[in-house]
Parts: sequence; structure tokens; C-alpha cells
Amino acid sequence: MLLDMGRNARAGADALRLASAGTRTAALTAMAAAIRAHAEPILAANAQDLAAARAANISPAMLDRLALTPARIEGVAGAVEEIAAIPDPIGVEGERWTRPNGLDISRVAVPIGVIAMIYEARPNVTADAAALCVRSGNGVILRGGSECLRSSLAIHAALVQGLQAAGLPETCVQIIRTADREAVGQILTGLDGAIDLLIPRGGKTLVARVNAEARVPVLSHEDGLNHTYIHAAADPDKARAITLNAKMRRVSVCGATETLLIDAIAAGPLLPLIAADLTAAGCELRGDGRARALVPTMVAATEEDWRTEYLEPILAVRVVDGLNEAIHHIETYGSHHTDAIVTEDAATAAAFTARVDSAIVLVNASTQFADGGEFGFGGEIGIATGRLHARGPVGAQQLTTYKYVVRGTGQTRP
Amino acid sequence: MLLDMGRNARAGADALRLASAGTRTAALTAMAAAIRAHAEPILAANAQDLAAARAANISPAMLDRLALTPARIEGVAGAVEEIAAIPDPIGVEGERWTRPNGLDISRVAVPIGVIAMIYEARPNVTADAAALCVRSGNGVILRGGSECLRSSLAIHAALVQGLQAAGLPETCVQIIRTADREAVGQILTGLDGAIDLLIPRGGKTLVARVNAEARVPVLSHEDGLNHTYIHAAADPDKARAITLNAKMRRVSVCGATETLLIDAIAAGPLLPLIAADLTAAGCELRGDGRARALVPTMVAATEEDWRTEYLEPILAVRVVDGLNEAIHHIETYGSHHTDAIVTEDAATAAAFTARVDSAIVLVNASTQFADGGEFGFGGEIGIATGRLHARGPVGAQQLTTYKYVVRGTGQTRP
Repeated sequence: MLLDMGRNARAGADALRLASAGTRTAALTAMAAAIRAHAEPILAANAQDLAAARAANISPAMLDRLALTPARIEGVAGAVEEIAAIPDPIGVEGERWTRPNGLDISRVAVPIGVIAMIYEARPNVTADAAALCVRSGNGVILRGGSECLRSSLAIHAALVQGLQAAGLPETCVQIIRTADREAVGQILTGLDGAIDLLIPRGGKTLVARVNAEARVPVLSHEDGLNHTYIHAAADPDKARAITLNAKMRRVSVCGATETLLIDAIAAGPLLPLIAADLTAAGCELRGDGRARALVPTMVAATEEDWRTEYLEPILAVRVVDGLNEAIHHIETYGSHHTDAIVTEDAATAAAFTARVDSAIVLVNASTQFADGGEFGFGGEIGIATGRLHARGPVGAQQLTTYKYVVRGTGQTRP
Repeated sequence: MLLDMGRNARAGADALRLASAGTRTAALTAMAAAIRAHAEPILAANAQDLAAARAANISPAMLDRLALTPARIEGVAGAVEEIAAIPDPIGVEGERWTRPNGLDISRVAVPIGVIAMIYEARPNVTADAAALCVRSGNGVILRGGSECLRSSLAIHAALVQGLQAAGLPETCVQIIRTADREAVGQILTGLDGAIDLLIPRGGKTLVARVNAEARVPVLSHEDGLNHTYIHAAADPDKARAITLNAKMRRVSVCGATETLLIDAIAAGPLLPLIAADLTAAGCELRGDGRARALVPTMVAATEEDWRTEYLEPILAVRVVDGLNEAIHHIETYGSHHTDAIVTEDAATAAAFTARVDSAIVLVNASTQFADGGEFGFGGEIGIATGRLHARGPVGAQQLTTYKYVVRGTGQTRP
């Protein structure tokens, strides 16, 4: 049955690939409208999911991610409309050049093909992922967490109605209709060549399993062990505002700062103020010896703290002696996700952005900007932490590949 | 020992990444000069490889690939110089835009990191691969075929001299110094996170093994089952010249045409002429019933012929009724590598290039142009047949990834 789904996905992907940008936009608009029109059955299905989850003693955090409300359904529909509004990436010409023999070569964006999304108990991902795949012309096979299966199926029914309203086949967006765990194993094998790309979205266990077992390419998110480095020439007000925001705006997102590095020369006056800001906001601080000398209320940091992505209101703090030491710390302990410097010195900023080998490197801005929406992508399927194909926020454009179109006038190769 | 090599490769990659474009160019120029200066020891090592290969009764084709001459060494040095002459891809800004909140975001090309090249008995690949990696700022671990080990080590000694002349550490380009087959297995595991990308270059057995066993991303070349389609509105002279060249210029390259599709309306007058051209050049023709009705000397093609990448002077021929049937054949049997149409009709050409989902789609040109040099890349490490990261010819630019540099003035995320 899953193999049939794979074959159907290829047909759906071809239909999406060959459709016009206008048709893809019409489908997305109709999908958003259908989500709104289906609010009642979606909420009813979600109530069943919630009841089962409560009966299974699922954690409050997971219950919150699972729960839909009329306002959240409106948010899901609105997110699909935002994706409908971004430029269609397919057919866009990248470079174009002419060879000495007259061959005219262009590189043109095309869909990847069929994408399989494996996610956990977040029913909104059902719509987000489908919308980004439709925008980028990719067929998609969705496999949501069993806890949100009824909600996801109800959302999927709306999505299919939107596809059909635009004249696209329902095979463009398929969903696995059982909670059977073996299905994931089959998807990881690639369904006999039917899947071009796997995207896991969820906790570390899921991502690790997909990366370990997948027999097809994977775009995934692993650690976000991010740093904010306050350079000697930092503006103190910017340093305070950025540090507080980078750590505390939302502690559970992958762009949250986990370690603060601060130049010794700046730390004397500034670290106590930053520590007071963070402590007032409910953040625990774990410092090295020099940081604790300035802020004695800090807990002593251990080697383990430099290596920990807390995703909690905890910040590791280290006093360093200049740019080289800061970069050495970042390259030693960081995860190459998102790192920021606060400085008014342009040469130091340029050295930091050139030397720090992370997907996102910021100057005088919060690491919490690590997000496709904030980048202007109109939505994202996640942040890729690998180095191949796409790095950083993955939006519709990152879900494309390319082909070369070569126009000649009868050229043969000597 | 291999794990040490992995750690050293990371250090070498960092040195290359942080070097200036000028230093990378100086290294490449010095590498080419050192290859010329080392011609004698390289030829002596090659003579030992050849003697051992002859004693092992290695095939004449493999002996030819293995053999170096003064002219071939000059060719190897010249290829490195060509790569020195292409623009350095590192640090090149792709897109740059400003967000409503004033954040200035740019996407900047950076090296992938450490690349492992696994190749067979072609000593020239030692220099080609190293040069493309140096140009693109990547550290590289080379693992050549055991048959060319002595030649490769002699070339590697020259490459290291070139690196050192430019002040770069020898860890930028390392080579596995034993013929031990277990080394390949260790490389496939990624050497404990030290390898970012694996590139196998060689026969199907090698590529299949790497794709099956690799635990890190792979860029590889699989089949090149390419088509030339002669449309009803083809210029007959162009059709003849392109078909002959696409099949017979070199039959063993991955861009060679393996199946000719020709519209029935054009086939009557044209197919006998094309068949005569090919037959005179020593090509065997295998046709469907309609092709054989026009050229009775053709062997009858079987279903298997449509699925075969001959890499020999054999061409499968099928008469079709128009564009849709041609595209259906290509999508059913092709390998999405390189496909061409010959037509004077612009609308048909546009439909073909839009609908055929291959890495390279040509209009009125020979499929044998599927080559990084012909694309103007200054060299290539091969043609990628996957859909992720890079598709088609892989030159220095395709061996890069990117990071985002975000410049702010104190922005925090609401």
C-alpha cells in the first residue's frame, strides 16, 4: 500500500511540476479557504486526539502543541495564505551565460520531486509542510505523529479539497492514514525510489533515527548551540537588549542563545547589568571563574555547560580575551547553527562573519532571528543544520533543485 | 591512523577556508609547476604501477587509463592551471536583501568542509580532485585505486610542495597511502564526523557500494541513459550532425546518446541518412518495427534496449508520433541525465525544455556537451545524477555551500 502511495506521489509531483505558478497559487488559496471551511470537523477530530492524549497521560507541553482552537485554525489558514503570497520559485532562471561556441546555457529552478515529511504531534505541520511543497512544486507524503493523526487527517481532507478546486490531483499531497510505526521504516527506505528527500521535524530521537536509517537524502535539524559574543567595542545598550532577547524571548526555539561570551574589558561594567536583566526575567546563569568574580550569584559552569543546548531559561557565561578566543570557543563547542557578535567595530564584525563557520552569523542582532519567516521566506519547514543542499532556514526556494537548459544552433562537440 | 587523518583534514580545511583567494590561486599555480618539476619521479612511479598491472593481467582499457606519458603529465599540470584561472567561488555574495526591520541579510558562498574522493585507476584524478577542492576551499582526503597508488603518491608529493610554496599546510590535501581495502569502509563511515561529503568517481560497482554504505552525504554519478529526439520540424543537416556526434564522438562518456527518438514525419527521408552516417562510423543500430521498416539493416530492438546505457557503438532507435510520445519515452526509460531535442520550432523546444526533467536539457546541440569544461566551469569532478545539492557538472562552484550574514543595528525579535 505504501509502495502504491509512492507511485502515486510521483504522478502528483509531475502534475505539480508541470502546473503553472498561477495554478499552484490558486491551490494554496483554496487550501487556506478549505481549512477555514473545515474548522468544525478539524476541531472535532482534534477533541478526539486530545481526549486520547489525556487518557495516555501525555505531557502538558505536548498537549499544548497538539491542541487546536478556532484562533489556531485561523493561524494555520493564514500561514498557508502567506505561502500563497510568496513568489513561485519554479522556472526562475538563476545564471545564464553564453559559451564561445555560441551555446546559451541557463540554470533554471525545478522541484526536487517527492518529499516525505515525518513529524510529531503538531497538527499545524500538516498544512505548513503541504503548503511549502505545493509552492515549490514538490509532491509530498506526510507522516504525522500518531497523537495528532485524527486532526491531521481532518486538515488533510481540507487540503485535498483545495488541490481539487485548482484542478490538481489529490496525489500531490498524501498522508499516511495509520499510526502503524512500521510505516516510518518503509518511508526511510525511500519506497523503491519514490522519495527524493526526507525531512524529519521533531525531537532529537526522531531526527537521529531518520539520519541513522534513511537510505535517501535527508534535510534535518540537529543542535542549535548558539552563542552571543559581546565584543569590547559593543554598544552597552544594544548588548543588554540583544542578550536578553537572544536568550529569553523564547527559550525553546533553536535560535535561542545558549552561551554568552563577553570580552573581559567590557565585562567589568556590563556583565552585572546583563546578569541583572536575565535574572529578573527568570534566567539561571552558569559562569566561568572570571564571570563569577563579577557576578558572584552565578552557579559555576562546568565543561558540560559549554556543550549543552539547554532550551531552558539557563545561560552559560564565559569571559574571554578578544575575538580569537571567542571564535575558538564557538568553533570548539558550537553547532554551526547561529552565532552573533555585538560590536561597533566594523573590522571586528567583518572578521567575525568571515571566520565563524555557522549557517547564520549575525552582527548586532538577536540570534532569535534564525527563522524563515524573519528572513522573509514566507514560511519555513525548519532550519537545516547539515552543510549540503540547504543550510539555515528551509523555505520554498530551498525545496528546489535546478536543471541546465542549453540552447544551440546545431553545435557538435569537437 | 585514518581518524588522525580526519582530524588533520579539518585543520587543513580551516586553513584553506580562511586563506585568501590569492593564496588559493598561488597554491594551484605552484601545484601545477611542481607537477611539471616532478615529471621524472611521477613517470618512474607510473612505470612501476604499469609493470604490476601488466603482471596482474589488467584489461587494456584500464592500462590505458593508468598510463602516464610526458604529454599526459603536461595535460595534468595544464588542467590544474585552468582551475587556477577560474574565479575563486568563496565569499561570493549570492543574494542580499533588507528586511522591513532594517536587518541586512546576505547569502555568501563558503566551502563545504572536508571532501573525501574515492576513485579508481586514473592517476590524473589525484591532481584534478585536489585542484578543485583547493579552488573551492575544501580540505580533501584522496583514496585512489590500488593500481595507481604509486603514481598517485608521486603526484601527491608534487601537490604538497605546491601547497607549501603558498604557505598552506599539507593537511589541505591528504592521500591514503595504503592499498588496504578496509580504508574505504572507514571513509564511508565519515571518520567520526571528519568528512562532510563523499564523492566516488569510477565504475558502477564503486558508486553503488558508496551509495549503499555511506553514512555521510554523497555526490555521485549513476546512469547516463541519454536521448536525442529529432522533432518533425528539425533541420535535417543539424539532425544528422548532432546525432552522429551525440552517439559517436566518444561512445564511453556519460553524455553519449544511447537512444534516438525520431518523429515519424521526419523519419521517412531522414532516418536512412542518419543510419548511413552512423553505420559508416561503425555504429550498430537497434530499431523498433517502424525504424526497421525504413532501415531494414537494423537489428530488432527489445524492451531491454530502451533501458540500456551501452557506452559502446550501439544506438537504439525508435520512431515516435510527436513530442508527447517522445517525452513519455524519455521519462519512462531515461535516467534524467542529459536529453536533447532537434527542432526549428521554438514553441516545441520550449515545451521540451520545460517538461523533460533531466539535469541537462539541450536544444539543437549534441548531448556530448554534458561536461563541466564545456559549460565553462574550468574543470569538473564529475556529473552529479542525484537531485540534491548539485545536479549536472560539478565544478568548484558546486563544491561550495553558503552561510547567511545578517547585519543589524541592535534589532531584537518581538
